[in-house]
Amino acid sequence: MNGGQQQAYDRGTNIFSPDGRLYQVEYAREAVRRGSVSVGVRTRDGVVLAARKHVRSPLLEADGIEKLHKIDDHLGVVSAGHVADARRLVDFGRRRAQTDRLRYGEPIGVEPFTKAVTDHVQEFTQQGGARPFGAALLVGGVEPTTADEDPKPRLFETDPSGTPHEWRATAIGANDDTVREYLEANYDPQSSVQSGIELALSALADAEDGPLAPEEISVATVAPTYRALDADARRDTLDSLDLLDEQAS
Amino acid sequence: MNGGQQQAYDRGTNIFSPDGRLYQVEYAREAVRRGSVSVGVRTRDGVVLAARKHVRSPLLEADGIEKLHKIDDHLGVVSAGHVADARRLVDFGRRRAQTDRLRYGEPIGVEPFTKAVTDHVQEFTQQGGARPFGAALLVGGVEPTTADEDPKPRLFETDPSGTPHEWRATAIGANDDTVREYLEANYDPQSSVQSGIELALSALADAEDGPLAPEEISVATVAPTYRALDADARRDTLDSLDLLDEQAS
Amino acid sequence: MNGGQQQAYDRGTNIFSPDGRLYQVEYAREAVRRGSVSVGVRTRDGVVLAARKHVRSPLLEADGIEKLHKIDDHLGVVSAGHVADARRLVDFGRRRAQTDRLRYGEPIGVEPFTKAVTDHVQEFTQQGGARPFGAALLVGGVEPTTADEDPKPRLFETDPSGTPHEWRATAIGANDDTVREYLEANYDPQSSVQSGIELALSALADAEDGPLAPEEISVATVAPTYRALDADARRDTLDSLDLLDEQAS
Amino acid sequence: MNGGQQQAYDRGTNIFSPDGRLYQVEYAREAVRRGSVSVGVRTRDGVVLAARKHVRSPLLEADGIEKLHKIDDHLGVVSAGHVADARRLVDFGRRRAQTDRLRYGEPIGVEPFTKAVTDHVQEFTQQGGARPFGAALLVGGVEPTTADEDPKPRLFETDPSGTPHEWRATAIGANDDTVREYLEANYDPQSSVQSGIELALSALADAEDGPLAPEEISVATVAPTYRALDADARRDTLDSLDLLDEQAS
Amino acid sequence: MNGGQQQAYDRGTNIFSPDGRLYQVEYAREAVRRGSVSVGVRTRDGVVLAARKHVRSPLLEADGIEKLHKIDDHLGVVSAGHVADARRLVDFGRRRAQTDRLRYGEPIGVEPFTKAVTDHVQEFTQQGGARPFGAALLVGGVEPTTADEDPKPRLFETDPSGTPHEWRATAIGANDDTVREYLEANYDPQSSVQSGIELALSALADAEDGPLAPEEISVATVAPTYRALDADARRDTLDSLDLLDEQAS
Amino acid sequence: MNGGQQQAYDRGTNIFSPDGRLYQVEYAREAVRRGSVSVGVRTRDGVVLAARKHVRSPLLEADGIEKLHKIDDHLGVVSAGHVADARRLVDFGRRRAQTDRLRYGEPIGVEPFTKAVTDHVQEFTQQGGARPFGAALLVGGVEPTTADEDPKPRLFETDPSGTPHEWRATAIGANDDTVREYLEANYDPQSSVQSGIELALSALADAEDGPLAPEEISVATVAPTYRALDADARRDTLDSLDLLDEQAS
Amino acid sequence: MNGGQQQAYDRGTNIFSPDGRLYQVEYAREAVRRGSVSVGVRTRDGVVLAARKHVRSPLLEADGIEKLHKIDDHLGVVSAGHVADARRLVDFGRRRAQTDRLRYGEPIGVEPFTKAVTDHVQEFTQQGGARPFGAALLVGGVEPTTADEDPKPRLFETDPSGTPHEWRATAIGANDDTVREYLEANYDPQSSVQSGIELALSALADAEDGPLAPEEISVATVAPTYRALDADARRDTLDSLDLLDEQAS
Repeated sequence: MNGGQQQAYDRGTNIFSPDGRLYQVEYAREAVRRGSVSVGVRTRDGVVLAARKHVRSPLLEADGIEKLHKIDDHLGVVSAGHVADARRLVDFGRRRAQTDRLRYGEPIGVEPFTKAVTDHVQEFTQQGGARPFGAALLVGGVEPTTADEDPKPRLFETDPSGTPHEWRATAIGANDDTVREYLEANYDPQSSVQSGIELALSALADAEDGPLAPEEISVATVAPTYRALDADARRDTLDSLDLLDEQAS
Repeated sequence: MNGGQQQAYDRGTNIFSPDGRLYQVEYAREAVRRGSVSVGVRTRDGVVLAARKHVRSPLLEADGIEKLHKIDDHLGVVSAGHVADARRLVDFGRRRAQTDRLRYGEPIGVEPFTKAVTDHVQEFTQQGGARPFGAALLVGGVEPTTADEDPKPRLFETDPSGTPHEWRATAIGANDDTVREYLEANYDPQSSVQSGIELALSALADAEDGPLAPEEISVATVAPTYRALDADARRDTLDSLDLLDEQAS
Repeated sequence: MNGGQQQAYDRGTNIFSPDGRLYQVEYAREAVRRGSVSVGVRTRDGVVLAARKHVRSPLLEADGIEKLHKIDDHLGVVSAGHVADARRLVDFGRRRAQTDRLRYGEPIGVEPFTKAVTDHVQEFTQQGGARPFGAALLVGGVEPTTADEDPKPRLFETDPSGTPHEWRATAIGANDDTVREYLEANYDPQSSVQSGIELALSALADAEDGPLAPEEISVATVAPTYRALDADARRDTLDSLDLLDEQAS
Repeated sequence: MNGGQQQAYDRGTNIFSPDGRLYQVEYAREAVRRGSVSVGVRTRDGVVLAARKHVRSPLLEADGIEKLHKIDDHLGVVSAGHVADARRLVDFGRRRAQTDRLRYGEPIGVEPFTKAVTDHVQEFTQQGGARPFGAALLVGGVEPTTADEDPKPRLFETDPSGTPHEWRATAIGANDDTVREYLEANYDPQSSVQSGIELALSALADAEDGPLAPEEISVATVAPTYRALDADARRDTLDSLDLLDEQAS
Repeated sequence: MNGGQQQAYDRGTNIFSPDGRLYQVEYAREAVRRGSVSVGVRTRDGVVLAARKHVRSPLLEADGIEKLHKIDDHLGVVSAGHVADARRLVDFGRRRAQTDRLRYGEPIGVEPFTKAVTDHVQEFTQQGGARPFGAALLVGGVEPTTADEDPKPRLFETDPSGTPHEWRATAIGANDDTVREYLEANYDPQSSVQSGIELALSALADAEDGPLAPEEISVATVAPTYRALDADARRDTLDSLDLLDEQAS
Repeated sequence: MNGGQQQAYDRGTNIFSPDGRLYQVEYAREAVRRGSVSVGVRTRDGVVLAARKHVRSPLLEADGIEKLHKIDDHLGVVSAGHVADARRLVDFGRRRAQTDRLRYGEPIGVEPFTKAVTDHVQEFTQQGGARPFGAALLVGGVEPTTADEDPKPRLFETDPSGTPHEWRATAIGANDDTVREYLEANYDPQSSVQSGIELALSALADAEDGPLAPEEISVATVAPTYRALDADARRDTLDSLDLLDEQAS
Repeated sequence: MNGGQQQAYDRGTNIFSPDGRLYQVEYAREAVRRGSVSVGVRTRDGVVLAARKHVRSPLLEADGIEKLHKIDDHLGVVSAGHVADARRLVDFGRRRAQTDRLRYGEPIGVEPFTKAVTDHVQEFTQQGGARPFGAALLVGGVEPTTADEDPKPRLFETDPSGTPHEWRATAIGANDDTVREYLEANYDPQSSVQSGIELALSALADAEDGPLAPEEISVATVAPTYRALDADARRDTLDSLDLLDEQAS
């Protein structure tokens, strides 16, 4: 299908192309790739979420670039793509998690949370009048368990079509393919959370072909509760991996 | 009707072409064919539902690719096409099944369930502002019976036009024609459920021209209650049919 | 009016062409002709409804192809055209028949039933945002009578414009003109119900230029109550008319 | 204004052309002319309504072609144009007549009835999203009077623009101009109802350039109550006028 | 601005042209000019409203062509342009006049009445989805006064833009400019009502370049109560002015 | 940006051009300039509002051309542009002023009044489906004060974008730039109200390059209460300024 | 992507381009750059907000050009871009701040306030029918603290995409890049509020390549309460920086 033909079918979410494609959803995927990359790694004991942040001015507060969001004690997300769209999805998810907790007296499961978000995303791909969300999320969490069960870490991706995918480790955003290849080559399902952090940061650095500054990355773990790493912890890990950009800030 | 003329009538669901066709519905059928194939086989004692899954990365959780869905104890579906659209139909169907059970105190019939889904699908082909569902379902179940009746297995297809079809065995998704030809050549209405499983997997393998790995397929039976086959059972069956891909995972 | 000019007025139901035509309604009539043919015959004592079914695979349950629908004890319809659209009209009609029975304590008349359906169909030809129904119905029934009246069989057609027509005998769907000519040449208003069945099947076979298999046709009579013919009855009639396709099924 | 310019302004009811015309309303008038002709004649003592019916198949029930509609004891209409649209206007009018009778305890006037219909028609010529009605009505009736008043016959036309016109005699539908010329040449305001019937049928026959069969015409009088002529009465009148088609049916 | 450029801005009411014009409103003014002319004259003691009627067939009831409408005892209007649109404005105005009388216990003022109508008209020039009214009104009345005040005749025009204008005398409809020039040349603010009638009829005849028949005109006065002139009065006045068309009817 | 490119972005209020402009708002400003000019002058003790009126026929009541509107005792507006749009804004403003007075027991402030109007105007520039207001207002008033405060005259402009501007003196409408230049050259902030009237009329005359007739202008002052100047006062002032058009009426 | 291709995707907010961009949002950013520049500087003890005002006529009240808005005692904003759009955002924000104060009995946080505004802005970038806001805000405030905490100044930007950014210092509007470069070169995080004022004004003057008049700028500080600088304070600071334009007013 050449460009002119494609243009005949790509102006709305409520139209299929003759070969059965939804171009606006595919363009929304491109919007995700315009954002800097984010990574998720599932380990034996928890999930690691990490993000590369693009600090376009030294006056910008790097901490203010929000790609990591705590949803509940046992649940966090990292986003890629259109920031305002991602914020909206996060708000939707938080309200849903709170409602579930109020209604059922217990935390929302990682999978039900993911599917509530993807169902919401799908609606914007079928009705006319709106556009799809130009953002993807990696949802990391530990499924709520009773006392005698082992905690069960889960990692999901929500994409602009509204499809949920479960991963052991993956990446979303710019150069997601390259980063995922790195993860495929180096992933060990039995690794510890700390090894997961190291894998995530190595993957981010590999995509950059160079060292990283602590303020250029965000890292959080859910193991089994959500905890964001502070600047010192990020610096120490980068240093121990020989990936610290000494010149930055 | 040439391409330019076709384009004049294919941008919306609320328009017929001069020869009485609904192009957006036909394009939605193409969307179904873009998904990997799913198979249904009705046997003497129950229905077999099976799906081919495309695992595009070793880090993807194959179990997380949802094409099989339990609706109720006596009822399941397998989908093909746009995953998020299929999920939405499954959600619609589950709510309907629950409502019926609450209202009438008994399980919903396989045929009424199917028609509730197709009526919902049809609405998206007549009103402007939305697009048709880019997903098809195979609905397999055993009609609720009283104590002295024989259980009655049923297999239905719902397509993007909202038309219900009843089948002895059929396929939806990529290469559905090829797989259906295999089924036509090998179907035996008096076969057992286990023979039904073997027919379904042979048909999937035939379409691939090669062996299959257990994690590349999903299988469930409703005979008379819904049961998904675990990895070992899938492996054993493939092995017994000499269709096991030894190299995979 | 040439093709280019026609295209200027054929994209919506809420627009007349300069010569006062509604092209979308005319295209919906083409959609009816894309479906296999259905026939209705009014006899002295009742109405015969019959349909040709296209069974595109030996695995398809021919019984599951629904073109005949019982509406009430004294009322049935046979459809042609877009199956999902016809189902929607049938659902509309059934609800209306039930409501009338509840409200007035007696069965709905054949003519009021038909007009309720056509009024519903007309709305989809005048308002923007939706398309016309791509289906026609033949409505056959016996008007409710008091004890001392003769039963009065009636046969109506509903077309995509929402116009009701009353017929002695007619056809809708593929080659409706040819079939109607056969009926015009052979119709006898004083014939019995059985002769009506024979006329209907002869007309269907004439249009095929060959014999018919029992599973390729549906037949029902309303005389004065609705009764669908089973496979044996269909086979016997075809056989008696020397129209039985011995090779089929 | 040439064709290309006209096309710029003729796709919607909510747009004027530069010379102040509403093309969709004019096209709806063409839709009226596509229907067979109907005639109304006001006489000294009542109104005559008559219609030419096109019976396109000998199997079609000519009585089922509805162009004459009784609204109330003192009020009837005859239509031309799009049959389903006319039915809708008739339904609107009947509901209005019933409501008025319930609310005020007396029959609706002929003029208020006409204006309720035309106001309804006008709305479809000013709002976007719908099309005008492709039907015109002749409204014939006798104004409700108190005991000491003479009955006052009235004849109105409602056209697709929503304008009411009062006539002594007129025609709507195919060749309305020719028929109206015949009426202008032969109308006598002091004629009896029977003479009015004869004038109406003569005008219909004149437009056909030949005799008429009783089943090709409908006739009703309101003088002062609504009465439809049966086939025998129609045949007798045609015969007395030497207009009877001996060959038909 | 040439034709092609104008066409870019003239398809909707919710769009300005680059030079700040609303073309649909200007086209609606053309629709007014397509109607026959109406005249209003304010005199010392009251207002005269008169209209030229186009009787296109001798069978048409000239009295049924409604261009003059009584609104209340002290208030009338005469219209030009699209008849059905004018009727709608008159209905709106009558309801408003009745509501005001009910709410405040006194008749509505001529100016408040006019402005209620023009505000309604303006809404149809700013919102999308509808077209402007293709009709103009002349509103003639006598402002409600207390016992010791002189009655105050007022004459207003409402145009398709929704602007109210107050006039001593003016014309709307076909050749309005020519008629207004005649009025400008001959208007005397101190004239009696009878002189006002004569001025109005002379102006209508001047535009026709010939005599008038009584049934071709409507005349009413509000002085201080609304009174329509009957055919004899119209004939007498025409005769006295030597403007009577002796040949007509 | 050339004409063709501009046309790509100027058909709706809900679209920015690539260089960030809202063309429909700019075209609405042109609509304001199509109206005759209005002037506002703030003086030491009050505000002067004046308008040039275009009396296109000697039969038009000049007093009926409404460009000056009293809103409340301490508040008036003068408009330019589309008269019906301005009336609508005035109605909106009056209702707001009344509501405020009822709710808070005191008159609305000049600035809050202006901002209520501009907020209303802005909504019509952001939502699709309507057009911007083609009218601008000058709002003149004296801010409500407590007993020991000096009255504070204020003069605001509301433009079609919904932006409020506060001025010492300004003009809106035809040749607003020329008139504003005259005001800039001659404005004295310490002048009396009478000097303000003279400045306003001189500015209007300067734009005309000639004398003015009293009925061609409207003048009002708010100092501190609203008062419209009658014809004699307007004539005297024009005369004293040697600007009186002796020939006019 | 060339101009023609870009035009295919830039007419609505509910459409992505093939490379994942939202052109209407990018054009709204251009609308911001069409407004004069505004600056925000975070200092040790508070935040400085400053704006360059374009006074296009000496008769315009410079004080009436509103770019600085107090939201609450501890919170202010400065805007750039489309003035009426900015006013609307400010109104939205004020209502939100008041609601929060009423509901929770304490002032709204600077970050929650910013995010409420950006969520509102995002909605206008995803739904069809409206356009994005053509305005950006700098939000300056001091986070509400308990008695024993140090006040925490914060500075946020809201852009037309609905993304919040936290800055140490930044600029929005015309030449924002140039002004931001000046801030980057001269910013000292430990500076006093007075030094922050000086930095802001120097940056504004640097962009002008010349001195500034006090009425051409607005300045406010939040340290920890909102305070706008009067003309004298602005003049003194400009003078002390040798940036005072002696010639202006």
